[in-house]
Amino acid sequence: MRKGEQTKEYILQKAAQLFNERGYYGASMSDIMAVTGMEKGGIYNHFKSKDDLAVQAYEYAVDLMRQKFAAAIKGKYHAVDRLQAVVVVFREITDGSPLTGGCPVVNTAVHTSHTHPRLHASAQETMIEWQDFIRRLAQLGIDRQQLKPDTDVEMLTTLLISTLEGAIMLTQLHQDDSYMDRAIAHLTDYLQSLALPES
Amino acid sequence: MRKGEQTKEYILQKAAQLFNERGYYGASMSDIMAVTGMEKGGIYNHFKSKDDLAVQAYEYAVDLMRQKFAAAIKGKYHAVDRLQAVVVVFREITDGSPLTGGCPVVNTAVHTSHTHPRLHASAQETMIEWQDFIRRLAQLGIDRQQLKPDTDVEMLTTLLISTLEGAIMLTQLHQDDSYMDRAIAHLTDYLQSLALPES
Repeated sequence: MRKGEQTKEYILQKAAQLFNERGYYGASMSDIMAVTGMEKGGIYNHFKSKDDLAVQAYEYAVDLMRQKFAAAIKGKYHAVDRLQAVVVVFREITDGSPLTGGCPVVNTAVHTSHTHPRLHASAQETMIEWQDFIRRLAQLGIDRQQLKPDTDVEMLTTLLISTLEGAIMLTQLHQDDSYMDRAIAHLTDYLQSLALPES
Repeated sequence: MRKGEQTKEYILQKAAQLFNERGYYGASMSDIMAVTGMEKGGIYNHFKSKDDLAVQAYEYAVDLMRQKFAAAIKGKYHAVDRLQAVVVVFREITDGSPLTGGCPVVNTAVHTSHTHPRLHASAQETMIEWQDFIRRLAQLGIDRQQLKPDTDVEMLTTLLISTLEGAIMLTQLHQDDSYMDRAIAHLTDYLQSLALPES
């Protein structure tokens, strides 16, 4: 990677973290200068505006999540194992991976609702991507006769995301992992109840 | 109510709505002047600062929710009926009641995390209050032999709030009630599975 690209990635990483915690309106250019240790001019060498930086930083964060989801299911064949691996990626959000401050999609959705249509649309697109990802894992599990044929794929998708995102919020708010632990225990039972016995 | 109190309540109502949608940093005093149709001086007759207004507007929003929860369980005796009534109050958030823009507690939690410790602590306190409320309804249901004696009260509380708050987020993000419908269908089955048959 060239020096310029390294610097750009460094800024994206710091800004993604800052925006995830503080939101677009809660993070000023001064804050970004403080966390990067860079002058305004140095940042604007790589980004046209705060807006441009925020949009790219969001995409950077989502890409970190995308890589985590891909790595999590790699080498797993059974739909229950894959969906459990997805659950683990959500759990790791509360451990600060890939970013501290909670889920970048939900944070961006809440932070930019009514105030930043472009970023809000990005959050919406990411959530649609995540839903499609879970839906496909479930559907493939049905096709491969790993999950019961009457598994309600939409229900599974909604429950997985709702319960995990809600539990991330509670765990973040109270700084207490037990919310996430309970949510995962429930979802584990739920996923296992959908599994077909090995034939 | 005296004229001054009426004006104060009018400002609180408008500001609570605005802060719920835009967050503390996304809503400026100019925005508050625009939604109230009042001059800055008129607003500052009733509130010391934007901060003071935001804190009181949040308490106003939480009080609307508190009244809704109290009204929802009124006249109901069975724990399952009461918990279902609580679920309906959460559903109504997605219908814009008492405020449009989603759950004021989660919105405030996300909007003020890392940026406004006072408001963030308020969101935390409200969530603790809601958890206690659900926990007490469940525990009373066990004591009255309406719910199975081995009902896991903490699990029930976490699942109810996580699933509903997550589903509110999805329904808000996609402007699609089906997320909330599925979450409620699942929670209804769950609550009914905890009920003891009438003796």
